[in-house]
Amino acid sequence: MTERPHTPILDRVRVPADMKGLSDRELRQLADELRAETISAVSVTGGHLGAGLGVVELTVALHAVFDAPRDKIIWDVGHQCYPHKILTGRRDRIRTLRMEGGLSGFTKRSESPYDPFGAAHSSTSISAALGFACAADLGGDPGDAVAVIGDGSMSAGMAFEAMNNAGHLKQRLFVILNDNEMSIAPPVGALSSYLSRLYAGAPFQDLKAAAKGAMGLLPEPFQEGARRAKEMIKGMAVGGTLFEELGFSYVGPIDGHDLDQLLPVLRTARARATGPILIHVLTKKGKGYAPAERAVDKGHATAKFDVITGQQVKAPSNAPSYTKVFAQSLIREAESDERIVAVTAAMPDGTGLNLFAERFPRRCFDVGIAEQHAVTFSAGLAAGGLKPFCAIYSTFLQRGYDQVVHDVAIQRLPVRFAIDRAGLVGADGATHAGSFDVAFLANLPGMVVMAAADEAELVHMVATAAAHDEGPSAFRYPRGEGVGVEMPERGQPIEIGRGRLMREGAGVALLSFGTRLAEVLKAAESLAARGLAPTVADARFAKPLDRDLILRLAREHQALITIEEGAVGGFGSHVAQLLADEGVFDRGLKFRSMVLPDTFIDQASPEAMYRLAGMDAPQIEAKVLEVLGVTTLGKRA
Amino acid sequence: MTERPHTPILDRVRVPADMKGLSDRELRQLADELRAETISAVSVTGGHLGAGLGVVELTVALHAVFDAPRDKIIWDVGHQCYPHKILTGRRDRIRTLRMEGGLSGFTKRSESPYDPFGAAHSSTSISAALGFACAADLGGDPGDAVAVIGDGSMSAGMAFEAMNNAGHLKQRLFVILNDNEMSIAPPVGALSSYLSRLYAGAPFQDLKAAAKGAMGLLPEPFQEGARRAKEMIKGMAVGGTLFEELGFSYVGPIDGHDLDQLLPVLRTARARATGPILIHVLTKKGKGYAPAERAVDKGHATAKFDVITGQQVKAPSNAPSYTKVFAQSLIREAESDERIVAVTAAMPDGTGLNLFAERFPRRCFDVGIAEQHAVTFSAGLAAGGLKPFCAIYSTFLQRGYDQVVHDVAIQRLPVRFAIDRAGLVGADGATHAGSFDVAFLANLPGMVVMAAADEAELVHMVATAAAHDEGPSAFRYPRGEGVGVEMPERGQPIEIGRGRLMREGAGVALLSFGTRLAEVLKAAESLAARGLAPTVADARFAKPLDRDLILRLAREHQALITIEEGAVGGFGSHVAQLLADEGVFDRGLKFRSMVLPDTFIDQASPEAMYRLAGMDAPQIEAKVLEVLGVTTLGKRA
Repeated sequence: MTERPHTPILDRVRVPADMKGLSDRELRQLADELRAETISAVSVTGGHLGAGLGVVELTVALHAVFDAPRDKIIWDVGHQCYPHKILTGRRDRIRTLRMEGGLSGFTKRSESPYDPFGAAHSSTSISAALGFACAADLGGDPGDAVAVIGDGSMSAGMAFEAMNNAGHLKQRLFVILNDNEMSIAPPVGALSSYLSRLYAGAPFQDLKAAAKGAMGLLPEPFQEGARRAKEMIKGMAVGGTLFEELGFSYVGPIDGHDLDQLLPVLRTARARATGPILIHVLTKKGKGYAPAERAVDKGHATAKFDVITGQQVKAPSNAPSYTKVFAQSLIREAESDERIVAVTAAMPDGTGLNLFAERFPRRCFDVGIAEQHAVTFSAGLAAGGLKPFCAIYSTFLQRGYDQVVHDVAIQRLPVRFAIDRAGLVGADGATHAGSFDVAFLANLPGMVVMAAADEAELVHMVATAAAHDEGPSAFRYPRGEGVGVEMPERGQPIEIGRGRLMREGAGVALLSFGTRLAEVLKAAESLAARGLAPTVADARFAKPLDRDLILRLAREHQALITIEEGAVGGFGSHVAQLLADEGVFDRGLKFRSMVLPDTFIDQASPEAMYRLAGMDAPQIEAKVLEVLGVTTLGKRA
Repeated sequence: MTERPHTPILDRVRVPADMKGLSDRELRQLADELRAETISAVSVTGGHLGAGLGVVELTVALHAVFDAPRDKIIWDVGHQCYPHKILTGRRDRIRTLRMEGGLSGFTKRSESPYDPFGAAHSSTSISAALGFACAADLGGDPGDAVAVIGDGSMSAGMAFEAMNNAGHLKQRLFVILNDNEMSIAPPVGALSSYLSRLYAGAPFQDLKAAAKGAMGLLPEPFQEGARRAKEMIKGMAVGGTLFEELGFSYVGPIDGHDLDQLLPVLRTARARATGPILIHVLTKKGKGYAPAERAVDKGHATAKFDVITGQQVKAPSNAPSYTKVFAQSLIREAESDERIVAVTAAMPDGTGLNLFAERFPRRCFDVGIAEQHAVTFSAGLAAGGLKPFCAIYSTFLQRGYDQVVHDVAIQRLPVRFAIDRAGLVGADGATHAGSFDVAFLANLPGMVVMAAADEAELVHMVATAAAHDEGPSAFRYPRGEGVGVEMPERGQPIEIGRGRLMREGAGVALLSFGTRLAEVLKAAESLAARGLAPTVADARFAKPLDRDLILRLAREHQALITIEEGAVGGFGSHVAQLLADEGVFDRGLKFRSMVLPDTFIDQASPEAMYRLAGMDAPQIEAKVLEVLGVTTLGKRA
């Protein structure tokens, strides 16, 4: 256990109201203490460190100036909210971050009234804040609405849609652009270059001319043209035009680690704003903690660590991660097929495509946080004769769903979707669960939908997708490490729609789709020991189904149980549809479909989450016994 | 039949290559003939008239200057492509537009090599064009990529995402901004105001200073500073900044109906562009046909009409449209509940919310083509204490799916989704079919999913949604007119998860979800006449299911058949899951689930599409007979 930091002022602040009596000097000290407490907490829990450290002063300033929870402070993505949680009544639980039963790693409405709008996916904050502002205007909850959004999040289309709408409505609204030149990866895109130009190389200009319409929004002392004021609004002359064209007043850029800038600017803006205002704040991700500042990802997400050395404590791994297996397999395929290209939406590291980009820099496209564009851009690449692999987490692919339907599936374009983080994901919780992709993909005509049962299967599925050029395909695989199976020299394309029999048994057939297969095999072992050895098969495909295999299993067993890491509507539902169409139910079949339960499951270890979902080996075994009407004592009921 | 126009030059142009020998003067005449032919064709077929008329000269200019199909001309949305189809080998079929077996009303890859990327939903063109451009660069299909996108489409986030990415990649790429100040409805949003400022009230400036970086992209004669050139780039000094900040060269605005401007600008741009360039073209929707120009919607979508008078031929209707019933019901509810507000994404007329906006202007929000924002903005309104009805067509709700999951469902916010155009939609074809919403909504924990069986039910479902404040809800209803049932004085909330029995029978139970109920009842009549009277029920809810009703139907009948206007994974799959979980299949049940087939169905009348889908009354009857093992002669097989 690391020693707790000394935090005399923070100890007096349980909720933001306790900050009201503090002097600016005390607020500066509060920020220092808050930073120390944040580092201490994350050293124990692991989690998103860099983003929180980058907004320590901003968090203090916002809570000093605005009046939460009456005013709605909405943190985009929400992974930078640990300091906010410490200041808003949750310090006593901050060392339970991201743990089962503990605090969420993101903002969450059900957790606190100080989290007016939960997040975890990016770029939603301006839309939500505008909703609050309009609601207040129409007699709903009163108070100001403040969105705090990173420069990376700003590249997503929905942030633009919200700005466009806000500028039109002219509603009083505060958008804090937290510009740290770093989302998870360095941001890409023309907007990012634009933001850089706002504070780099801008000719210094006369304050009055520079401030233009935003002048009245600047604090009085700055209107005198003091030296600091001049520095503060450096770049204002070129800056902000883009935002001003969209109807926002623009102030900035200002130093987001200097409370002497933040406090007066926020106070004046709050006192005077009549319409939407964008305050451009420059911060450093990982600020104030040397190991984070030094890290390539600025301490974006970290395991538990030693506060003094910054050394992370990571469990040794027995098998490669699925992500890495995907990346290496794709590189292997791309070496012999120059038409293969890869697309990521701002997740080069998370998807493993950073490795692909190192090997094939011209053939890898990071399009920014822009899943809609990523999918249709991939469709364009495919229409242009290439073989795009569009690598997007299951939960984020929801962002590009219409594009999957309209641009890929209807046109039968051979885009390959590499769907990482399928199923339950652990510490990131419900917002990151990949629960719905099988259901929303498998009913699209012409789509091939695969799930890898282990890391060797993933290698083959990458090869399968590369070879399948007649239409779109998708293959899903989970977060984390493989199961340690022997790895093939290289991938061999699987026949489309062909599953595999894993063990022959009798009575019950267990038909798995995805990585629950390991638990299914464990359950089968245990059942075999009781003389109830079931048949086990790996479906591999939710679409097209292996009709022969499934109908044979149904015919030769009294019970058929499907299992998948997804919600109802997916694999099991397609199997049920087949069985119904073929009249299999007419004569009686003990059919069950084990799917994720009808709840959003909060964060825990993936194992604990699957236990909660009723999907580990003992629960599969219990399901078989129940279906067979066998009591746990081994007798038929 | 209207007399065909006299088109001597057009008669010589079968494909764009035939235009290469034409002089500019002949091209001007070609445009006039093309306009006449377009009007003549649409007078016979009905369809999207105004958009095509607005781009007649642009279509001629693009095909005169670029080299399709080698160069990829991508029409955003695609509903303005009729003149393009006439010029690209499809004139002989142009009078089959939007008919069964005829030409699609949109661009379509499978229809012609001159349609390199199909569309129908907006704002995809820049992403697709960038994909083609990058593919060409990496050894894929060669040729230039040109996206033609309207100002309304430009407000969607994905267009911004694509611009941001294109500006970053610096790929040679042509974006024609077709600015007609009119998508379907007048565009809203700050971007629209910005575009207006580009050509209204801009101080006229010295050409050289004005043209800035884009100077080299202007045709030689214009660099001399000729009078017309000056007019042409009026507004350039203020103009384009926003696009230039995103890395595009900007040329414009130019008169999109003047080939003397279009041709030299496009020729020069094609000859000289090295990176992405945006050419800002001003056009008038409905241009050159007085009845369209005079219409409020500028002839956006029209029935067949008389060319001379412009009078549209519309079939008399026996019942109100579902859209209107929704709007009137919502107004009724809103009169007694001031917390009710409405949100549309640029479809005030299509959703009926124009009526709501007339009655409650401050309580209706048109956010532009921005479904992602529309959903999360609605979530913000709900979190702020209001009761938002977010009215989005089924097919367009796919654009906001992640927001439905992440911002609405996970947070259990009481956003009400009014889902128009559910099921098959007729002339707009596969791209507009509302096939997937039940599947992608009904597996979200806490979501209430309803379908109206008729227009009276819709009234009650609006009331149900208004009353249900504990979490999100959705109700779906089809395009077109109701069935003519008696209308209730006002809506009465339905108990959540309670279906209704329509007729008691025996042997077979037919469980309908949605407006197939009328066909089901017809089939039941016919079966009753043969002494096989089935039970018929209206499920009303796909979530939560009416467990008692469904289990009773299963218990009391030898067969249970579900039917819905949606793909597999939806209502029938949820029923199957319930039956499996409850062990109903163990003892044998003739269960069938009638869903949309696993194909994208091309345009036809809705009736014809449902016949193709196997979902009209005779087909339902045949399904019952088949399940019962009865031959069509009434004998058990």
